[in-house]
Amino acid sequence: MTKGNGRSATSRALDLLGAFTIEHPTLTLTELATRCAMPLATAHRLVAALEAWGALERNTDNRYQIGTRLWEIGLLSPVPRRMREIALPFMQDLYEKSKENIHFAVRDGHETLYIAKLTGHQAVPIISREGNRLPMHSTGVGKALLAFSSKEFIDTYCARPLARYTRHTIVEPGRLRRELAVTRERGYSLTNEEMTLGSCSVAVPVFDARGEIAASLGVVVHSVRDNLTKYVPDLKAEAAKIAKMMIAHHCDPYPGFVHDLPQGV
Amino acid sequence: MTKGNGRSATSRALDLLGAFTIEHPTLTLTELATRCAMPLATAHRLVAALEAWGALERNTDNRYQIGTRLWEIGLLSPVPRRMREIALPFMQDLYEKSKENIHFAVRDGHETLYIAKLTGHQAVPIISREGNRLPMHSTGVGKALLAFSSKEFIDTYCARPLARYTRHTIVEPGRLRRELAVTRERGYSLTNEEMTLGSCSVAVPVFDARGEIAASLGVVVHSVRDNLTKYVPDLKAEAAKIAKMMIAHHCDPYPGFVHDLPQGV
Repeated sequence: MTKGNGRSATSRALDLLGAFTIEHPTLTLTELATRCAMPLATAHRLVAALEAWGALERNTDNRYQIGTRLWEIGLLSPVPRRMREIALPFMQDLYEKSKENIHFAVRDGHETLYIAKLTGHQAVPIISREGNRLPMHSTGVGKALLAFSSKEFIDTYCARPLARYTRHTIVEPGRLRRELAVTRERGYSLTNEEMTLGSCSVAVPVFDARGEIAASLGVVVHSVRDNLTKYVPDLKAEAAKIAKMMIAHHCDPYPGFVHDLPQGV
Repeated sequence: MTKGNGRSATSRALDLLGAFTIEHPTLTLTELATRCAMPLATAHRLVAALEAWGALERNTDNRYQIGTRLWEIGLLSPVPRRMREIALPFMQDLYEKSKENIHFAVRDGHETLYIAKLTGHQAVPIISREGNRLPMHSTGVGKALLAFSSKEFIDTYCARPLARYTRHTIVEPGRLRRELAVTRERGYSLTNEEMTLGSCSVAVPVFDARGEIAASLGVVVHSVRDNLTKYVPDLKAEAAKIAKMMIAHHCDPYPGFVHDLPQGV
């Protein structure tokens, strides 16, 4: 009995945490219960336990949000923490030269997961956030990850519907395949207002010890600024240093990146 | 029935997450059960639910660690996220001038909670980490937070045992009180190898709309480098900009900072 209830209660409590997104960072009890298809009484009971521990906190509008304690615990996750510790100093060097948004990302499932971001006052405002996910076909770091993935993964990705974000997003599978071939050929990806109007990007792959794609490093600039290719030499140099450090420290990419391949294929 | 089991199962599952620390980022099932004073069977059942959801993941040594999914969810916590979004660009400006470790911290209970950190290749290696806690009496940002706290809070803090980290740590309440008075007087804190041998720091307070201490901003450099006071003008300028932005965006400090005051008093 305890087993059944216990397991399901834990899973339901985790579902409540999973209901929060960057688009919906705060939710009422009713919204939480609805999103999790849960009786209000159950949601109320589980939310109370989550709030008591600090996983959730109530804001001044009496809406629930992820608690600072969960932020602290989440930062203990070794994979993103070690990748950040390795990548950030090199990203810092790139930022100092460019003063633009610098991204370090990995693939998770069919999405781009942003592990680290550096930005400043002069950088163009963009929607990317650390710990946030964006598509692979419409972002620079995503295209770099996709272009150097296995043929099987690319086939799977291109067979899925390609969401359009701007009139420049590549949504035709054939065109995306040609774009990825060109990206592999020249060794870096380019986007031109494909995710957000007004910003364009360039990114390079970061390879692991087996020579497989592990992550990607990119710069996002305002689309009216001069040519992106000028960033490629620095991006490649820093990407090589990050790859070397990751290999030296046996820092594997985000586990999902490897684990989900069977499903990806 | 379900209620009792449900609530306790959720709380026990959260206890398992809380067992991980920066000193112990990976734990075996047995270690988890021991730390949470939980029967192995219960721990096994709850860990399975946590792992299935992605809150925990098992590494190659078959040890458990906080999962990347929890890292993603934790980053949705609005308070640290908004404070980081506001502070980081100004910290970036400080980093570019100094090339040293830059810290932005708040007080939580009787500890210094590091909200944001910028570092590079040239900065002295230090133990601070984003989301990590360090004492208030032995760190620059901590002393700045403590010095500008209420007399009641300072009394409470000084009445508690002051842990020694190096031979330079101030562990005598009277000496700490005098140090805090000097800090208030001159408007910035200084530490000299009080947390870690080889590093010293300078920090300034960040005030909220009520003129109360909300956070602190500091620089940590190698102790042999030249005088720290040269950083004070830039620190004060950036701290003022951060305070202005926090007030404009109604960005309250970490709730614990206010909520725990009654206990603090």
